Amino acid sequence: MASSHLLFLILLSVFISTTFSSPSLIRLPTGHRKFGLNDDLYCDSWRLSVETNNAGEWSTIPSQCQVFVQNYMTGQRYLSDSVIVANYSFAYASSVEIATDGKDAWVFDIDETLLSNLPYYARHGFGSEPFDEESFDEWVDLADAPALPASLNLYNQVKEMGFKIFLLTGRSEDQRNATIKNLLFAGYSDWERLILRGTSDQGKLAIVYKSEKRSELVNEGYRIRGSSGDQWSDLLGFAVAERSFKLPNPMYFIA
Amino acid sequence: MASSHLLFLILLSVFISTTFSSPSLIRLPTGHRKFGLNDDLYCDSWRLSVETNNAGEWSTIPSQCQVFVQNYMTGQRYLSDSVIVANYSFAYASSVEIATDGKDAWVFDIDETLLSNLPYYARHGFGSEPFDEESFDEWVDLADAPALPASLNLYNQVKEMGFKIFLLTGRSEDQRNATIKNLLFAGYSDWERLILRGTSDQGKLAIVYKSEKRSELVNEGYRIRGSSGDQWSDLLGFAVAERSFKLPNPMYFIA
Repeated sequence: MASSHLLFLILLSVFISTTFSSPSLIRLPTGHRKFGLNDDLYCDSWRLSVETNNAGEWSTIPSQCQVFVQNYMTGQRYLSDSVIVANYSFAYASSVEIATDGKDAWVFDIDETLLSNLPYYARHGFGSEPFDEESFDEWVDLADAPALPASLNLYNQVKEMGFKIFLLTGRSEDQRNATIKNLLFAGYSDWERLILRGTSDQGKLAIVYKSEKRSELVNEGYRIRGSSGDQWSDLLGFAVAERSFKLPNPMYFIA
Repeated sequence: MASSHLLFLILLSVFISTTFSSPSLIRLPTGHRKFGLNDDLYCDSWRLSVETNNAGEWSTIPSQCQVFVQNYMTGQRYLSDSVIVANYSFAYASSVEIATDGKDAWVFDIDETLLSNLPYYARHGFGSEPFDEESFDEWVDLADAPALPASLNLYNQVKEMGFKIFLLTGRSEDQRNATIKNLLFAGYSDWERLILRGTSDQGKLAIVYKSEKRSELVNEGYRIRGSSGDQWSDLLGFAVAERSFKLPNPMYFIA
């Protein structure tokens, strides 16, 4: 009994002494406290908390994590994480028996799910700057966002399997043309419906707006078998999909 | 337009050529395929898919990830990830206004949440061996599991704040005495109720059993403000907490 406790205490002591600059174990991650040489360890744990929805609401990435997020997004890990999520999505989709009534649906979010705004965020501090609607809307109008490769592959696979594809985005109706142009240019085609925020959806939390729209699909008789999104607000709420797939995104949070 | 697409194609090419041994981008993560020198990258992405509930059901960790999981569990990362989850839990708990009626509740799972079975799993391949109920029950009877330090700290904090603490575990009623002994020995005290699987709960999925038990608490008038668990089946289902906190656990999965 004593040995396992001792092991834990030793591990804990080493951890505290090498990681934190004061001996108090629990510290609030809010505010941008310094972890000194161990920023990477802190930022990796912060990222896990974001991806598992533990972090709750946040506005910008912790200041000490800008280089970490930049390295993550532009290195192999973001692509690898995206590929593995797509693999699990594909494995699940393959297990669904598609009925002949054309009512088996898959819902995709757009930004950081089908399209990557990494070129925009690379010029805006990888989430370290507060969101600027004006410059982002200009970027959207350019219709220049590349496909997230793993998602384009998954999209074509579920389309091939016979799922009806619904694109459900927080973008506004007045961005419809630019969004269609961008999707087609990035290689996406043959979706069943592209759902954007109309006038009556403005000001709603994304989780409410998206749940309502999924609910309308359910009322039309669709079975939402799967859903892919980079925000938990794409996936949770009501009328949720039978399986939801959370794509990585450590750059921003949408409630 | 061309430049950002080009950047992505270059990144993708580098990624594919350095990571995968064949040029097909999407591959199934099921089966224990080899990633060669890039096992760490694959295993880290696999772990993220487990922690975000993308992976669905699984029985043992991928064989090429045993060293990765061992390093994760015995190194700084598991402790760091646990501390950051506890920090976010504490920040949220601090924001809750505790009423004077004694009905604000916090639900804790036990295994890999309050108590760490790492000494057991270290002797059983860190999740690479199929679950063996007999040897695990013997381990439980020893009442020798240490506290997960960040959780013990959080437990004492939410107790101090005035939350009623409910321990909701998949362990059986016949393990009640050993469980109490272990909890006390590890430093836990003053919980409101310890809920274990009774005869009528045997054979139920954990997500159903735990939802039913939370539902009983709600019917007793408790407001389940927060919940902490290492399995999604601790947190999802019905009668869910206002905020749920997913602790890390890449060693095993419970449906």
